[in-house]
Amino acid sequence: METHTMAAGQGHPYFPQDALIPGYAPNSTPLPVILGAFGGIIGAFVLSCVTLAKWYSPALKRADQLTISWFALCGFLHLFFEGYFVLNHTTIPSSQSLFAQLWKEYALSDSRYLTSDPFMLCIETLTVLTWAPLSLLTALLTARNRAHEQGTRHLLQAIVCVGHLYGVALYYGTCGFAEHMAGLSYSRPEALYYWGYYVGMNAPWAVVPCLLLWRSAGAVRMAFGAVARGEEGKKGR
Amino acid sequence: METHTMAAGQGHPYFPQDALIPGYAPNSTPLPVILGAFGGIIGAFVLSCVTLAKWYSPALKRADQLTISWFALCGFLHLFFEGYFVLNHTTIPSSQSLFAQLWKEYALSDSRYLTSDPFMLCIETLTVLTWAPLSLLTALLTARNRAHEQGTRHLLQAIVCVGHLYGVALYYGTCGFAEHMAGLSYSRPEALYYWGYYVGMNAPWAVVPCLLLWRSAGAVRMAFGAVARGEEGKKGR
Repeated sequence: METHTMAAGQGHPYFPQDALIPGYAPNSTPLPVILGAFGGIIGAFVLSCVTLAKWYSPALKRADQLTISWFALCGFLHLFFEGYFVLNHTTIPSSQSLFAQLWKEYALSDSRYLTSDPFMLCIETLTVLTWAPLSLLTALLTARNRAHEQGTRHLLQAIVCVGHLYGVALYYGTCGFAEHMAGLSYSRPEALYYWGYYVGMNAPWAVVPCLLLWRSAGAVRMAFGAVARGEEGKKGR
Repeated sequence: METHTMAAGQGHPYFPQDALIPGYAPNSTPLPVILGAFGGIIGAFVLSCVTLAKWYSPALKRADQLTISWFALCGFLHLFFEGYFVLNHTTIPSSQSLFAQLWKEYALSDSRYLTSDPFMLCIETLTVLTWAPLSLLTALLTARNRAHEQGTRHLLQAIVCVGHLYGVALYYGTCGFAEHMAGLSYSRPEALYYWGYYVGMNAPWAVVPCLLLWRSAGAVRMAFGAVARGEEGKKGR
């Protein structure tokens, strides 16, 4: 990070260059090390969840295993990574903990994470309190794979997907409007940060929820369809 | 509105008192007149929707009629009233059209509607594009009351309810964080504006979606339950 142009006077590499980030200290650990550690922790958590699920429900389909991976990933990120931001947003700029260094790196693409931006704090607090537990609960119900819980499972899956889609739309949208209205960019201009971090790292929450919502919608329509045919059958007798 | 204290130099009655609202002109029509006109239009629209629904589906239950009223109300407000804001947010402060005068009155409890606030513009644009058509579609499917559309109807109802709940949580939340973090209030301090307009007029979108989501969750669980029992019955034969 030390290679970036520092804004005159503010002593940080973030955009907008006049953003106030008191106490900022550049990361002390090389990027590959913090990314490797983060990837390792996430990978271990997601793999453990899927392994546990397959042990508990050996008949689990491939698609359900992928669904569990997704919601375990979401639950982990919401609860621990975003939870860390909500609890420590004032000290992240000066901290050298693993999660603080990750946030400082990501913030090159969105400085709102280092300026205690009220919108980010608000949406992240709601994410930690709502989407974190609901994501983990959806993973759990998918893993249990019980016939009488399929309604709750698909309803929860649809709810969390709507939350993710609305959330990511607002996340991109608030930046888009800030840029459009006030010419304000929270991301450094380099492609790595804008396209790689800001667009790329959030894009999965615009794509995967669409697929999962589609699947749950299909399951719900099928269940109601079966009920409707059952009732028609009774009338026909 | 002319009776309110105007902030020195800014010439408007809104909070924070140093908010920039260029071209502000006090409302020219008495409040009871604009409220009466607005209530009349909304009442006529909602009543027309329910009357049409009862004509089309005479067997419609009372609860479904109320559901249609709710989503017709939401659809109208999202599409026309909030749509007006999205299209005319820069000219509302100086305009004397019915909707502009209503926004100027409501903005006494939330000045972000007169300052082209990026968060408000973003969430309102999403509301107009997403929740408006989905609200009206839910009202339509409820009115048609067809057995094979009940799955789609309850899924849509649940989706719109999640959108409303997330939206109102963010609406209250962003104000709450702005006040907590920066001591910034967008509402005039009088109880009428803070409790009556800001809290009271948005509270229905925190309460009604909970009830409707609960009803849809019950319907979805019942449908999946019937399917599960049907499959158990087949196995038992």
